[in-house]
Amino acid sequence: MAFTRRLARFGREGISFDSLDPQVIATSKEMMINAAAVGLAGAAQDQGRALAGLFQDMGGNGRCTIIGMGLRTSPANAALANAFLIHLLDFDDEIQGVATYCTAVIFPAVMALAELNANSGQEILTAFALGCETAAKLDSWVPSSATGEITRPFSGGIAGAVGAAAAAGRLLELDQEQMESALAVAASQAHGPPVNFDPPGRALQCGQAAMAGLTAAMLAQRGFQGARQSIYHQSTLLALSYPSNAGIPGSGQERFFEALANPFSAIYPGLTVKLYPCASASHTAIDAILQLMQQHRIEAGKIESVKVSVTPSVLRSLPYPEPEDPWQARFSLNYIAAQTLLYGQPLIEQFSQSALQDATVRELMGRITITGEETPTPLTDRPATVTVRLVGGRELEQLVEFARGGPQFPLDQEELDAKFLYCARHIMTPHHIQGTIDQFRDLENIQNASGLASILGA
Amino acid sequence: MAFTRRLARFGREGISFDSLDPQVIATSKEMMINAAAVGLAGAAQDQGRALAGLFQDMGGNGRCTIIGMGLRTSPANAALANAFLIHLLDFDDEIQGVATYCTAVIFPAVMALAELNANSGQEILTAFALGCETAAKLDSWVPSSATGEITRPFSGGIAGAVGAAAAAGRLLELDQEQMESALAVAASQAHGPPVNFDPPGRALQCGQAAMAGLTAAMLAQRGFQGARQSIYHQSTLLALSYPSNAGIPGSGQERFFEALANPFSAIYPGLTVKLYPCASASHTAIDAILQLMQQHRIEAGKIESVKVSVTPSVLRSLPYPEPEDPWQARFSLNYIAAQTLLYGQPLIEQFSQSALQDATVRELMGRITITGEETPTPLTDRPATVTVRLVGGRELEQLVEFARGGPQFPLDQEELDAKFLYCARHIMTPHHIQGTIDQFRDLENIQNASGLASILGA
Repeated sequence: MAFTRRLARFGREGISFDSLDPQVIATSKEMMINAAAVGLAGAAQDQGRALAGLFQDMGGNGRCTIIGMGLRTSPANAALANAFLIHLLDFDDEIQGVATYCTAVIFPAVMALAELNANSGQEILTAFALGCETAAKLDSWVPSSATGEITRPFSGGIAGAVGAAAAAGRLLELDQEQMESALAVAASQAHGPPVNFDPPGRALQCGQAAMAGLTAAMLAQRGFQGARQSIYHQSTLLALSYPSNAGIPGSGQERFFEALANPFSAIYPGLTVKLYPCASASHTAIDAILQLMQQHRIEAGKIESVKVSVTPSVLRSLPYPEPEDPWQARFSLNYIAAQTLLYGQPLIEQFSQSALQDATVRELMGRITITGEETPTPLTDRPATVTVRLVGGRELEQLVEFARGGPQFPLDQEELDAKFLYCARHIMTPHHIQGTIDQFRDLENIQNASGLASILGA
Repeated sequence: MAFTRRLARFGREGISFDSLDPQVIATSKEMMINAAAVGLAGAAQDQGRALAGLFQDMGGNGRCTIIGMGLRTSPANAALANAFLIHLLDFDDEIQGVATYCTAVIFPAVMALAELNANSGQEILTAFALGCETAAKLDSWVPSSATGEITRPFSGGIAGAVGAAAAAGRLLELDQEQMESALAVAASQAHGPPVNFDPPGRALQCGQAAMAGLTAAMLAQRGFQGARQSIYHQSTLLALSYPSNAGIPGSGQERFFEALANPFSAIYPGLTVKLYPCASASHTAIDAILQLMQQHRIEAGKIESVKVSVTPSVLRSLPYPEPEDPWQARFSLNYIAAQTLLYGQPLIEQFSQSALQDATVRELMGRITITGEETPTPLTDRPATVTVRLVGGRELEQLVEFARGGPQFPLDQEELDAKFLYCARHIMTPHHIQGTIDQFRDLENIQNASGLASILGA
């Protein structure tokens, strides 16, 4: 119980807008801008339209916006739909070492409530930073996240739901008892099974986590009680995810709370805002290929063979040498490397059924060898070396230690804007896009953010 | 994949109304009547009103009824709310050896869809029997259910969601591929953490399972795909619940499918329709006390001491000798025994904050000893012996091997009607109650069951 009580207290008082480091505020805005962008891209996908269509039929009080659909629905449905859309293309951000897609889960819960209750930009920023940090720290204490194993419950859904409850509870100004209830009820509604681990399946889990957290906080506000057992109970969150089922021992709890927001996980170990709509483990190899192509103006026709060397862990997390559908393609280094060598920076359209049938890509894939020979270090966890052997025998080699978009090479403002433009181009006009980005950049000065959510409806 | 494919095929073709044994039809109707009754009782509770109030605010397309609230909402919200209301008082039915509250999860999903699509009574009965059997058999293959341990994921939410998806998919006449998707997506949305294991927390998990199954089937109908990994994948349903993480081996799969609907779990090992609104593990002891009181006209004032002996497993599952709130009281054999000795058959009102403060009850609890000395056998899993020592030294003893309402002593029609009257008396008139019961008893002859759901709105 003490764990939940302390986490609830942190949710209510642990941070305030005035206490937030400017870097946290700036990073939070980036996370939101990127989430809005990739949500708009998701809204243009068939799977996104299927879910939104269902919610349109289900109806709702019409108080909250579904991104990019011109639809409004209930807060819970909007939270679910928007989290789904944001993660659908696996193009959202990631916090290093954290399996929870914090932004995808927290942002929709925060935006739905803010739209409902006309919160200010400062309240939104505070709740968002709080929710992401709560989810990230809970998740990062689960050892399985780091190993990439997916045989345990997907910590993302569990930690995400608790983080969303903290954020929603903060916006609703829950009292201590209500906040404890919200966290515990969210934990009890959290999703674990890692079945359907392709992006639409995971996106639905993100959606359910956002909805569970939001609903838990709204129920707690109405007196629904659920803090009988702590989220730190041996049978729950941490125990389910911990290999030993032992949870964090007493001294570990102290360390957990010392580490909370000190610093924020989004600052250290830091954030990756993806430049490419495919598994982040492939991004150093993509950058290596792009650098080789740029430096040596390689023509695909002149390539005899290619060797892509990554770490053993990256190799395991990209298990589809012969992808059968667009979701496997996002986790196929052979496919991604071939696409990049042929057409440059991977685009959303390259992970489609028709692109998969590109005979040129398939042919080149046959000349690509993937090995797991790179050695990770604490500082460079995903180095990749790409060796291109040209017809005639010349060999070109490129090592990349850090991917663009990661904490070591963060996207600058222009790159983030370009990503938004790329993602939203089918749905918004360039003028509308720039106006949306500008509003997020000025978020702390907005008194009533209802319009900010509705602008994303497009 | 084969497991999901086979389960999906069973969902589509494994049973039909014409193939159903009359006993399955009769039992299914009893399960539904009891569910409607306890749902109406739940609707009179504060926690039930909190949830329904939230859904009222959320809105919805108004196509589906929330039990006992005079409210209509979307199918998904109705499924969630009604499952919650049905399990809220822990007064719904149970299938022997199955931790999933099958009726609480499946009935609301079926009724929501039937109301939406105007299905016939025969379609409803078939889908309901299918969903309950799917959930029950999946659950009964999880060893932890039987042991009463709750340190593993709560199988109820997982098996329940898959069963609800099968039932909803049947009503929606999904094709094979869609049905596979529905089952797999439901599994990926299933809830596991057994935190908040008191009835409102569990009821919310039932609600989420009903909603997850219904939503998965409706998404599958719209082309949402999620059958990439099977629900029988090592990382999911069975693996999460199985101690060994090994799942059912190949030969076990054959036995699983041979056992499916052969016979239905609700027929054998059979159904318990609770007579008392508290943990079913306490019911043999309650019956022993009631028999002693009836035979010997015991006056509470003449009781010197009481010994209640149950099996060690029952003792573990009723862990609150000094209950602090109404939910613990439902799992407190000391409290339940004292209430029964003083006031007879336990009633809903006796599990309230005010009843807990009854000094007479508290005083008598001090003279009750609980022991775990009974020995269960395969046929009598919860025998209870109650020994009352009267002032003056006379000792009265009663052994009860089977509780009323269980498979060995099923409630007859009049008892079931009386329970409905008791549960619904605050919400429906006696005439309305009898009309509702009659409609369920005649379910196979109803061509359009939309009105059957709406009648429960009261």
